[in-house]
Amino acid sequence: VGADNDLYINQAIVFIEDAIQYRSINHRVDSKSLWLYRWYYSRTCQWILSLTITIILALAFIEKPSSLTVTSDVRYRLPAWNPPCGLTESIELLCFLVFVVDVSVKSYLVGWEEFWKNKWLMAYILTLIVSLTDWIVSLSFFCAENVRIRRILRPFFLLQNSSMMKKTLKSINSTLPEMASVVLLLAVHLSLFTMFAMLLFARTKDGQQDKEWVAYFRNLPDSLTSLLVLLTTANNPDVMIPAYSKNRAYSIFFILFTVLGNLFLMNLLTAIIYNQFRGYLLKSVQSSLFRRRLGIRAAFEVLSSLKETPANAQQSCVSVGALQQVLQKVEMDSRCKQAIMRSLKTCSCDQLSAAQFQKLFEELDRDAIKQHPPSPEYQSRFMQKMQLAFGHPYFGYLGNVVALANIVSICVVLVMDADKQPSERDDFFLGAINCFFILYYMLEMVLKILAMGLKKYLSYPSNRFDGLLTVILLVLEIATFAVYGFPHPGWRPEFMGLLSLWDMVRLVNMFIVFRFLRIIPNMKFMALVVTTLLDLVKNLRAFAGILVVVFYAFAITGIMLFEGAVDPMGNSSFINTTYNNGSLQCGTYEQLEYWPNNFDDFAENCDFMALFSHFEAEIIYWLIYLLSVNLICRWAKIYFVAWWLISSVIWVNLFVALLLENFIHKWDRRCHRESLSDIEYQRTVELMFRDVLEEPTEEELMEKLHQHPHLQLCR
Amino acid sequence: VGADNDLYINQAIVFIEDAIQYRSINHRVDSKSLWLYRWYYSRTCQWILSLTITIILALAFIEKPSSLTVTSDVRYRLPAWNPPCGLTESIELLCFLVFVVDVSVKSYLVGWEEFWKNKWLMAYILTLIVSLTDWIVSLSFFCAENVRIRRILRPFFLLQNSSMMKKTLKSINSTLPEMASVVLLLAVHLSLFTMFAMLLFARTKDGQQDKEWVAYFRNLPDSLTSLLVLLTTANNPDVMIPAYSKNRAYSIFFILFTVLGNLFLMNLLTAIIYNQFRGYLLKSVQSSLFRRRLGIRAAFEVLSSLKETPANAQQSCVSVGALQQVLQKVEMDSRCKQAIMRSLKTCSCDQLSAAQFQKLFEELDRDAIKQHPPSPEYQSRFMQKMQLAFGHPYFGYLGNVVALANIVSICVVLVMDADKQPSERDDFFLGAINCFFILYYMLEMVLKILAMGLKKYLSYPSNRFDGLLTVILLVLEIATFAVYGFPHPGWRPEFMGLLSLWDMVRLVNMFIVFRFLRIIPNMKFMALVVTTLLDLVKNLRAFAGILVVVFYAFAITGIMLFEGAVDPMGNSSFINTTYNNGSLQCGTYEQLEYWPNNFDDFAENCDFMALFSHFEAEIIYWLIYLLSVNLICRWAKIYFVAWWLISSVIWVNLFVALLLENFIHKWDRRCHRESLSDIEYQRTVELMFRDVLEEPTEEELMEKLHQHPHLQLCR
Repeated sequence: VGADNDLYINQAIVFIEDAIQYRSINHRVDSKSLWLYRWYYSRTCQWILSLTITIILALAFIEKPSSLTVTSDVRYRLPAWNPPCGLTESIELLCFLVFVVDVSVKSYLVGWEEFWKNKWLMAYILTLIVSLTDWIVSLSFFCAENVRIRRILRPFFLLQNSSMMKKTLKSINSTLPEMASVVLLLAVHLSLFTMFAMLLFARTKDGQQDKEWVAYFRNLPDSLTSLLVLLTTANNPDVMIPAYSKNRAYSIFFILFTVLGNLFLMNLLTAIIYNQFRGYLLKSVQSSLFRRRLGIRAAFEVLSSLKETPANAQQSCVSVGALQQVLQKVEMDSRCKQAIMRSLKTCSCDQLSAAQFQKLFEELDRDAIKQHPPSPEYQSRFMQKMQLAFGHPYFGYLGNVVALANIVSICVVLVMDADKQPSERDDFFLGAINCFFILYYMLEMVLKILAMGLKKYLSYPSNRFDGLLTVILLVLEIATFAVYGFPHPGWRPEFMGLLSLWDMVRLVNMFIVFRFLRIIPNMKFMALVVTTLLDLVKNLRAFAGILVVVFYAFAITGIMLFEGAVDPMGNSSFINTTYNNGSLQCGTYEQLEYWPNNFDDFAENCDFMALFSHFEAEIIYWLIYLLSVNLICRWAKIYFVAWWLISSVIWVNLFVALLLENFIHKWDRRCHRESLSDIEYQRTVELMFRDVLEEPTEEELMEKLHQHPHLQLCR
Repeated sequence: VGADNDLYINQAIVFIEDAIQYRSINHRVDSKSLWLYRWYYSRTCQWILSLTITIILALAFIEKPSSLTVTSDVRYRLPAWNPPCGLTESIELLCFLVFVVDVSVKSYLVGWEEFWKNKWLMAYILTLIVSLTDWIVSLSFFCAENVRIRRILRPFFLLQNSSMMKKTLKSINSTLPEMASVVLLLAVHLSLFTMFAMLLFARTKDGQQDKEWVAYFRNLPDSLTSLLVLLTTANNPDVMIPAYSKNRAYSIFFILFTVLGNLFLMNLLTAIIYNQFRGYLLKSVQSSLFRRRLGIRAAFEVLSSLKETPANAQQSCVSVGALQQVLQKVEMDSRCKQAIMRSLKTCSCDQLSAAQFQKLFEELDRDAIKQHPPSPEYQSRFMQKMQLAFGHPYFGYLGNVVALANIVSICVVLVMDADKQPSERDDFFLGAINCFFILYYMLEMVLKILAMGLKKYLSYPSNRFDGLLTVILLVLEIATFAVYGFPHPGWRPEFMGLLSLWDMVRLVNMFIVFRFLRIIPNMKFMALVVTTLLDLVKNLRAFAGILVVVFYAFAITGIMLFEGAVDPMGNSSFINTTYNNGSLQCGTYEQLEYWPNNFDDFAENCDFMALFSHFEAEIIYWLIYLLSVNLICRWAKIYFVAWWLISSVIWVNLFVALLLENFIHKWDRRCHRESLSDIEYQRTVELMFRDVLEEPTEEELMEKLHQHPHLQLCR
């Protein structure tokens, strides 16, 4: 009986922890499994798992071809250090071992029956098997082979570890049919207009007249590419200039194409995606709430089967003592724990019903009201007056004005110095004013700390930001004086140490510009926008994760396909061919000076795509043109079009949809929150929607509980 | 008493007409004014007014500098025909006279008290005065002066004539404060990053290292321009290449800038505008409904004061006879009139209460159920079978398949002929298959007409589209055969008549491609998308009007500012200066071959801006660069930035907001309409929202009626 009671207590602990973390409760519930479960979800274990995922993803930067060079320009780049064969591979093996342990524990915990239904676990095992096989092949070739499938599979480990990302992926998946319809419509639009264009800009007998044909509509692939690129608006005025120059009326064709394709169809995609994702956030928060209520309820049910409860009770109930025992062992936020304990003590009754039990744990859903520590109380009149003066908001506004003055002064100096030779430049003026302003900043910080006390000062995020930057500026300024002496007219010392004086001054100025951001919370609309953006970033984590996954796969594929395709010496087959062809497109690479953009290493590819993800139009245009000369081009074309579709069209639209959703919620709330705005809430996504969430009913909870694969409830 | 009764009848007629046209009823209601009012809103008068507005706007195309040249390329363009002084001016004077009459009638009809409150009328009069003054100045200079303010003011006449546009403008106006906040945020973002960039990419002592500084961040205006253009993503990879080539880490700066500016702030603008416009359509439809109900109610009130009503009636009511008398004189849709008359006859009572009266006119709000005329009934068995076969939808599907086959065949021929010289081309194959397909199309049309009867055939829009194109194709084909004979192998006749054979074939092919669009209604999702787009176009008329207004003003301003700025001979002061400076930007215009894009005439400017409105980024970039050399550049920069903000940022976002609104409504309705989809409705914007509209209450209506400035109700 005692063992049984212990088991129930342990089950209750785990269920409550599940509820806190919004985890599913469908796992094994015998004693040993519970221990394993708590161990697996302990901070250390989860931290090790995250670290392993980070390491295996980061391997791409140092693996051959490594990114450990300052520039990626093929003309200047020194040969990069490549790790010896076996180094990265052994790290990889260690990671794989961790994953094997992870997948076995996970599979054991969900139980066999659940395991067969869980496609993610199956895929996880499959990925591990393929990766390990590929690893063995790689080692048996002594790392000489180029095609490494396991590198493309790596982001899967990131994907399967986050339930949010899995959920998001499911949502995206359900939007695909409609997106496909619009993409199909785009394809029809594109192909009809291509045919039209080929008929309109056909080759004429008079060679002078068909510039448009020569440049953009020479054959079907060319025409298709021209119009596809026009859809991305990259070659916008260029593509129509020859035709427009011949007759004004040709512009009608291009206007029609861009208005239909770009204005209507592309925005229709936004509308469809927004429509699909309108309820997405709400739905996901709602299901989280259900998981929490379910966990609490499960804890209640197991506790109510404890032997100590009186047998004559009609309703099942839980004794306060048992709950206290459980609470002491549960790992949770100490503030919440104290609040629950407190309300347990004030509760007069000895037994808790299900409703009372749920009510106790509603503390978890509550906003944490942030309280600033009190200011110190001074005895002397002088100190009290000082405290009043420098604790006042006006002192903060004065600080903002001074920061603005500093920015303006830097701006003026920059404009004046813009056309001067570096040797003519006099650093005295800038040095002197910076010195003055930094002194003021230090004074402001010290006075504020005196007025508020260190603890209260640090409890405001804006003060922390301010203080940190002021300290950095002070250190830099002192270092400057230590190395170069005090500023005086004609202050132009020689280069010394790590950074020249000019570099130091520039660095200081950059920090000052950065420090100017402290004005943001003081402007109402800006504060709203910034908090919306911050909220958005929180909600976007899952999307960002998926983007990283897609990104990674694309970057690795890009390396495998195009490694070494750009060679400055012209001795690679690719460049040679283009030169030999002598076609118009030859040498575009050099003319454009896009040397640093090649596909030779991972960081390269990442930078490259990050920058061009949304607005990569132009570079795609050039690269398609460039690469379309060779056989490699077919792949490049498909690669870039796929990247454009995924990154620019789909991802950006998802982003817009989420932003709309978040912003509109926030905006609506702003109106009825106005009065309460003095209290700072530590807001989470869940809390934002609290007003509209529906509580799950008792029946739903019990039905779900009875479906639990491992838990046998008494009644 | 009889005169009074006549007046009441006339008032009722006008009020019902107001209700039908959703007009305000706040106008004078004495006999003479009513006659004037009906005359002013008669079709002829409104048509004359619209024509006048069209003419005065169209004048820009033929005025000096006129657009009556084929090409706008300054190198090839022949001197355009310019109208003699006094020609366009006299047309203008006629238009002004019409406007003067218009404004006086309008002012008289609203009455003096209302006139002083009506800002639009005041602005109208002011515009007319300024225009006439400018016109007199122009004539007194014998048309030699260049600055013509009245040309910029012209679009105002378009604006003031449409109540929808005025309403939309009001909505846009109310969104401005929030838009201004985001634009301010963008400005702060831009200026902080500019300072950062100037510090980061400062001039170094080593001349080789500062390519970035030389190219993009030479001084404050340069840096600001570079980053502003980066915000439009026009110079996206170029601007970072020199820095990136030096060190990979510099890309972080550019990525941060574009992600913050382009992804967050720009999309925030979309969110704000969408949020403001979410209820816009609904609200405007709601206010239209109110106007309709108010008009009907006003008609009821005046009719109930007729002397023939029994004095003992407790409630006010209207005799059926009086209403019939009114209805006969009201100008309205004949279908509605008949329906109302019919329900009046079936109504058993002799007197109508207010509710009954309103109910009668609800016919106006009803969807017109479109009924196709019946198919002819044939006597012979053979004809009946034929009717069954060719009236079946499968016959339509067969037609689609044939059209697809035709498209594919044209595509194949195009691909095969792509690289052939025009002289090698054999037109026989294409001629033969086109001949065959066009015969099939004719046959299809004839058979369908036989099966359905001409009336039923023409009642389907898809058939009208089909039939029209088939007839055009037939005419073209017959003309080809008449001029060039029947196709045979090696069919390559000499040029004859207006078009060569090759041109004829191309034209036929274009029509065939166009005819292929008939498949759209057969694909469910496409049909939905297309109807959404068509709805959108209806709702967008007001926006489009405002765009035309802004467009016109910008185009005229552009002509005034930059006329003659681009000169191929290099003998204008502008080009001279750039050559003399010998700066890097010189000659960019020639290198880019943007010759046709100058600002010398109106059509030019319109084409130009239409094409670049959304995606003008690149051209703006080049033109800013080009023009920034001279003094004129200051204006060009401001002009283009303003144009970019208005067209690309604000207008496109408005468009997206409306599209989202329309699409989401449509999508929601699709689900509960599925079952009724067989019935074709002639849907109007008002009907789309009928489910969510609120009926105005009796009190609201009566309160509004009592506020009427001219109508004195008995009770």
